[in-house]
This record gives sequence, structure tokens and C-alpha cells, in this order.
Amino acid sequence: MELFSDEIKIKTRKRVELVNITDRVKSLVKSSNINDGIVNVFTRHTTSAIFINENESRLLGDFEKIIENLVPMGGSYGHNAIDNNADSHLRAMIIGGSQSIPLIGGSLDLGTWQSIFFVEFDGPRSRRVRVTIIGK
Amino acid sequence: MELFSDEIKIKTRKRVELVNITDRVKSLVKSSNINDGIVNVFTRHTTSAIFINENESRLLGDFEKIIENLVPMGGSYGHNAIDNNADSHLRAMIIGGSQSIPLIGGSLDLGTWQSIFFVEFDGPRSRRVRVTIIGK
Amino acid sequence: MELFSDEIKIKTRKRVELVNITDRVKSLVKSSNINDGIVNVFTRHTTSAIFINENESRLLGDFEKIIENLVPMGGSYGHNAIDNNADSHLRAMIIGGSQSIPLIGGSLDLGTWQSIFFVEFDGPRSRRVRVTIIGK
Repeated sequence: MELFSDEIKIKTRKRVELVNITDRVKSLVKSSNINDGIVNVFTRHTTSAIFINENESRLLGDFEKIIENLVPMGGSYGHNAIDNNADSHLRAMIIGGSQSIPLIGGSLDLGTWQSIFFVEFDGPRSRRVRVTIIGK
Repeated sequence: MELFSDEIKIKTRKRVELVNITDRVKSLVKSSNINDGIVNVFTRHTTSAIFINENESRLLGDFEKIIENLVPMGGSYGHNAIDNNADSHLRAMIIGGSQSIPLIGGSLDLGTWQSIFFVEFDGPRSRRVRVTIIGK
Repeated sequence: MELFSDEIKIKTRKRVELVNITDRVKSLVKSSNINDGIVNVFTRHTTSAIFINENESRLLGDFEKIIENLVPMGGSYGHNAIDNNADSHLRAMIIGGSQSIPLIGGSLDLGTWQSIFFVEFDGPRSRRVRVTIIGK
């Protein structure tokens, strides 16, 4: 069994932004020389998240609207006395900050419509996502 | 350290359906001959999810109601111009598509009330769930 | 590759309570003698969750409020005919019961503001969280 670890650097441009990082994860998988195992994708930031879903622009717009309905940016939050981003933290808690994906025969075992997204909730910022691969 | 990987095939019958897959995951654990490690359960579909909770029918009905409150099926979504299932994708983003469960002495380390569920949000469909085990 | 597994015991005092378990996870990492890999933190209970976010008291209060807005304690739930904690289960399904964190050079690869929280939704109770480490 082997272990591989590397980082993806992301520069976001908007407050809320969905960045498709599938190709960058695939590129790290290739350079790892690990064929079968598990790939963990982990954001190191408390106002961002990782999810896997379809890369379709209208759907991504729908996500921005539904998360605004559930956790409004303009809500009344205690944390905003310190830093004006409580909504960003709360959204991150709900969506979650990592995903673990099976690796088979050198490829991520994603379904046809699955892409991996870095979800920015408090941009624009420079972000780092850690990719860890365990397998053989 | 050993690696095991196999698939569970599921046929759902309703648009929203909670399928208890605990016994099928346990059966794969047994056939893996791995005793201790981590078991990853991953759905390959963008309109489904995996969660762990209690197998109690009224609670599962409560889940269907609360997710309908949070992300209504009849909401106004841009993605529905393409495919009438934006709600299914958005629900999947919120619940999440995988779980990683400890394996100890040949058994999943689930608590007394914990069952593993495949969550269908856009059935009826044929689905595949990947189970990956790393351990010894 | 090595495997390590141990448990954290937690005693909660309130119905909803956020318990920072970062130091306890770090202490298990140290005693594992594993330097690089993945650390899985898994709750064995269906009315609790694990998330990673900032340890700031007002933000933690904001979380309690937003989850009450999304899944009200006093809602009408079928499961409450059996046990008066449907809201606790539903909140747990949404937040999720485990996190997998990269381990690098003997340290959890958490960002500056990331702490690991056990989230109690049905306390006060005695709880057990399983920590599994795979790496070398």
C-alpha cells in the first residue's frame, strides 16, 4: 500500500463560487502512480466546502439560490460582530468540507455526471485543497 | 494492508426512497476478509445520497417531509429547463454522497441504532453504490 | 502502512452542544505513531454529528439558531410518537456523522481556523466517537 499527498491551489473571484476541480484531482491521481484505493479531497478553510455533483451551469445557479434561502447572507448572526461572514461558515458546516472517492484501475470511480467542486462561500480568496490518496 | 472493492446494485421504485443497505455492506465486508480498517460507501449518482441513521419508518417519513420543506420538489429551478430534477440534485448536495465507517474485528463499528441508507431522490432508477475497504 | 483505532468518550450537558474534540483527536494521533495518512472521526450515534469549523462562541450560537430554523425542535414529526427526538435525528442526517482529515508529518493538516466538533443534538448523554488512522 502506498500513500500520496499534494495540494491544489485555487484563486476564487466571487463571494460564492463553484470551482470544478475534477481535472486537477485526476491529474494528481495520475502523478501518484496509485491505481486502486481511496482519494480524499479536503478543504483547509472554514468558509468553503467540497461537493460532488453535475457540472451544469443552471444547476449551479440553483445551488446558489437554495443555499441563500436556507442560510441567508443578510441574516442576523452573532459572529458578524467579529467578521462579516457567519453565513459562509454556516453554509460550510451544512455542506461539509471533504469527500472520499474510490479509485479503480487508475481512475476516479465517478459516475457519468459526477464532478468534484470546491465551493467558495467567502471569496474572493486564495484557497488550498489537500488531496490524499491511499492505495496500491 | 489489503484493499477490497465491489459494487451494490439497487433498484428503486419511488421518486424519493430510503433503502437500508446495511446488510449488503456487511456481506461485502465478510467476503473481503479484511478485519480492521475503513469502509467507504459511495454513490455514483448526482441525484442520490448516503446517510447513516435509525431504521424507523416514521423517522424516515419525517426525513422525506423535512427535505421537501428545505428543497421543495415544486420550486422554481433553472436546471428544470433541461431535466425536471433540480430538487434531486440540490438535496444530494446537502446530504452528501458517501460515508466512511470504521471496521473493527471483522464488523462495522456502527452504534446500536445506526443503519446505512442509500437515499434515492430521483427514482425509480437502477443505481450502483461502490464499497471500498482498506485495512488488514 | 499501519492502522490505529481508539475511542473518545464524551459527556454532554445540554440538549444541543458543540464539543471541541480537536485536542483529543490530536492526542490519539500522537499515540498512534503514524505520521502520514488519513484520520477518520466517526460518531456512533444517530442523534449527533461531526463537523469541522471555527471555534468562536458567537458562531457556535449562530449554528444552534440556524439549525433550529431549518429543523425546528417543536416541529410535527411522526417519530416523536416513539421518542421525542425526531429533530435530533434529522439534524444529524443533514450535518453528517463523520469527517476524514489528512495527516502530514505527524500533524492533522487542519487550516488555521479549523477545529473538529462533536455535535450533540439530543443531550445530555454519554457518547463515543471512534478515531481510525490509516497511514505510515
